[in-house]
Amino acid sequence: MNSAMSNTYKIALCQMMVANGKEQNMVRAAELVGEAARGGARVVCLPEIWNSPYDGKGFSAYAEPMDGPSAKLLADLARTHGIFLIGGSIPESGETETDENGKARIYNTSLVYNPSGALIAKHRKAHLFDVDIEKGIRFKESDFLSAGAGTTVFDTDFGKMGLAICFDVRFPEMFKEMSDAGAHLVFLPASFNMTTGPAHWDTLMKSRALDNQIYLAACSPARDLSAAYTSWGHSCVATPWGEYCAAADARENIVYAQIDIDYLIKIRKELPIGN
Amino acid sequence: MNSAMSNTYKIALCQMMVANGKEQNMVRAAELVGEAARGGARVVCLPEIWNSPYDGKGFSAYAEPMDGPSAKLLADLARTHGIFLIGGSIPESGETETDENGKARIYNTSLVYNPSGALIAKHRKAHLFDVDIEKGIRFKESDFLSAGAGTTVFDTDFGKMGLAICFDVRFPEMFKEMSDAGAHLVFLPASFNMTTGPAHWDTLMKSRALDNQIYLAACSPARDLSAAYTSWGHSCVATPWGEYCAAADARENIVYAQIDIDYLIKIRKELPIGN
Repeated sequence: MNSAMSNTYKIALCQMMVANGKEQNMVRAAELVGEAARGGARVVCLPEIWNSPYDGKGFSAYAEPMDGPSAKLLADLARTHGIFLIGGSIPESGETETDENGKARIYNTSLVYNPSGALIAKHRKAHLFDVDIEKGIRFKESDFLSAGAGTTVFDTDFGKMGLAICFDVRFPEMFKEMSDAGAHLVFLPASFNMTTGPAHWDTLMKSRALDNQIYLAACSPARDLSAAYTSWGHSCVATPWGEYCAAADARENIVYAQIDIDYLIKIRKELPIGN
Repeated sequence: MNSAMSNTYKIALCQMMVANGKEQNMVRAAELVGEAARGGARVVCLPEIWNSPYDGKGFSAYAEPMDGPSAKLLADLARTHGIFLIGGSIPESGETETDENGKARIYNTSLVYNPSGALIAKHRKAHLFDVDIEKGIRFKESDFLSAGAGTTVFDTDFGKMGLAICFDVRFPEMFKEMSDAGAHLVFLPASFNMTTGPAHWDTLMKSRALDNQIYLAACSPARDLSAAYTSWGHSCVATPWGEYCAAADARENIVYAQIDIDYLIKIRKELPIGN
């Protein structure tokens, strides 16, 4: 860590209730990001797929290219409020990238903007959610999305941060890579569901933070029981000691947390495991 | 997995109260292992350092070579009861291995015997517990122990199993290696303490099982509040779904669990993450 950097700063996770209309979602995202910035957050995160319903139809109907309205809104919000904005994720239409049938590929993409409104990072969900659990959820993301690749780390005024999306969290090696690359905090826009949420959310969030002795900030949509895909909620920030310092329930809310790099350094010194 | 193998079998973790005298500990270990075998367990595990107090003095006073009385007892118990016995761990005096001062090196060693009483695996704790936590525990195992190296996987009538000791659990790559080598169950003799136990035990045990979609069986000594080093207890078996199917509190007890390889295969099919 660069000792000249600010050693403590506030982040916010906007656990937004996602609606069916893209414009309605853009208005709500703008409201929540504004509130988070006024609340003192210098880094603000939106949830996975905040501008569209979480289903195959939504992904293809709502997908937009990199210069589409959702990306423009994110850039504007970052600049207007002078914050780093982790833009949750949106269905991205890779205009020049086509599948074997000549159709534009769609990715689950997270965009990060700096306080000047410049794009500083882009992560395409690397591991798609293909599950079929008896008496639980069945969902095959690879039917309508293409996978990205690799890990994503970016520089900020507060040090290096990492970025992954939802199912990526099940691959510990990605988090070790980001941590080894210097990330002290990893953002995870993530929409778990009513099967994997209660079973796995807490274990995964805490263990990625604990194993790498980093902060892990997971931002979910709020729970909508009327949606085809119901999100677990429970946005949270896990500390390098593997416990939550902030967490939401299932309702729409903003989760604030103070990130403390000195605390991270202390934990690594007290319990050295090679991080 | 070899489909000719038995797909379900019972294991037992002996959460033994460790005393100061080696002979007393040997008697108690024999009683508990016998009870576990009579209870139907085909694979039985003892805790980390079950024959000695958990401190520097104990380690050097109680250490014995590979043909010492504790190892002989373990072989006898396995043969007498016709079980696979994971011999927790004991301080092992590496007779021909000396440190820079010509002193015999001491290892924290786990020995595994088959139902014929033959030694089939040996694991020396690879990661020593050197921590100094403010308002918490201070312990520097490397002052009196030497570290082993590598991962340990062995064959049984029930398929391949892995073996690691306590602090090793903080290194996810060891568990991935054992899982990749075919282990469907990893035993972890482990003595967490009153600082790291409440903070990290559950997260670590569940996440190693969940990430690799294996069973993880952790066996602790019972809690002794009068000991210099007080163990957390809470021996447990975590499933490939990342939840406990059996767990103890802090008192002396035997934890039984049914290992079900068909269930493991089902989980990997329902939620594929490359295991």
